[in-house]
Amino acid sequence: MSRHFDQAQGLTEEHDPATHEFVFNQTMLRIKDPERALKFYTSVLGMTLIKRLDFDEMKFTLYFLACIPPERLIDWSNDDNQRIVQTFSRPAMLELTHNWGDESDDSVSYHSGNEQPKGFGHIGFAVPHIDDACERFESLGVEFKKKPNDGGMKGIAFIKDPDGYWIEIFTPDRLPDLLGGRL
Amino acid sequence: MSRHFDQAQGLTEEHDPATHEFVFNQTMLRIKDPERALKFYTSVLGMTLIKRLDFDEMKFTLYFLACIPPERLIDWSNDDNQRIVQTFSRPAMLELTHNWGDESDDSVSYHSGNEQPKGFGHIGFAVPHIDDACERFESLGVEFKKKPNDGGMKGIAFIKDPDGYWIEIFTPDRLPDLLGGRL
Repeated sequence: MSRHFDQAQGLTEEHDPATHEFVFNQTMLRIKDPERALKFYTSVLGMTLIKRLDFDEMKFTLYFLACIPPERLIDWSNDDNQRIVQTFSRPAMLELTHNWGDESDDSVSYHSGNEQPKGFGHIGFAVPHIDDACERFESLGVEFKKKPNDGGMKGIAFIKDPDGYWIEIFTPDRLPDLLGGRL
Repeated sequence: MSRHFDQAQGLTEEHDPATHEFVFNQTMLRIKDPERALKFYTSVLGMTLIKRLDFDEMKFTLYFLACIPPERLIDWSNDDNQRIVQTFSRPAMLELTHNWGDESDDSVSYHSGNEQPKGFGHIGFAVPHIDDACERFESLGVEFKKKPNDGGMKGIAFIKDPDGYWIEIFTPDRLPDLLGGRL
């Protein structure tokens, strides 16, 4: 039996034991203004700031955020060093990089990856109820790239963060029906 | 007590119950050649292809990959619809997008986000032993942006995937010492 669940050219069947404990830990995005970005990710998406790292010599700060339900905050250490280990061990950390001064430099804006030259596309969040989530986003003044009922792929939304990065929003249970005609 | 572990401007203290079940599920990167990219992510990084979705009308395919130790493959359903729900529910999925024909179109290459215009920076993987991991990457012919002993931040490496995206490689246990002078 294959260790992959679908077929494709290029798949390596052998699972090298050297990779057994590898963890896809983080995705890093540059941000212009940390106050604006942190407000968005901690209010609109409910994320928690797990670790802040200031690099004085190089004049930048990293902010590591995660989706943590309040009852799971106890999983995280209050000891700075322990929490650094946790921050770099666990899956699905969002790393925001702030180069000091960007927030007051009118010449600085970051590239979403969705205009030329294209590359990175988006990050994506699962939500329990897409329509409720999008109504809430609208009430919070969030900018939409695509509302759930726009375009061909009903039931999937794209919002924009304050830097213009795209964030896909979907409800997993609804996707088999949504994708049904396309498999 | 704050629900955040460090201080910063912009943090929202209240955790809106509407966001309690939000999951940071995915990071999407466009790739030129799926055979080349899948070989890299399944061999060099040991990832598993969880779901492939072909969109015939729009002429693109999505490949969803995860770091799954072999003993945890049983957590994933062999039923396509169940596995779609899992694919979009779980944290730390890597989504690779292939626009058909890119692989044979010399004019197409994707932007890493680390040259102008900058934006997305990198994805990052935790590995149990940074030196062993990097020796193995070298033996596999992986391109390095930074080896662990290069530059100022010893013990952290950056490799490049076949499209040129940067991938940070680090060993969590070693980071408190490494970052010690900077906190």
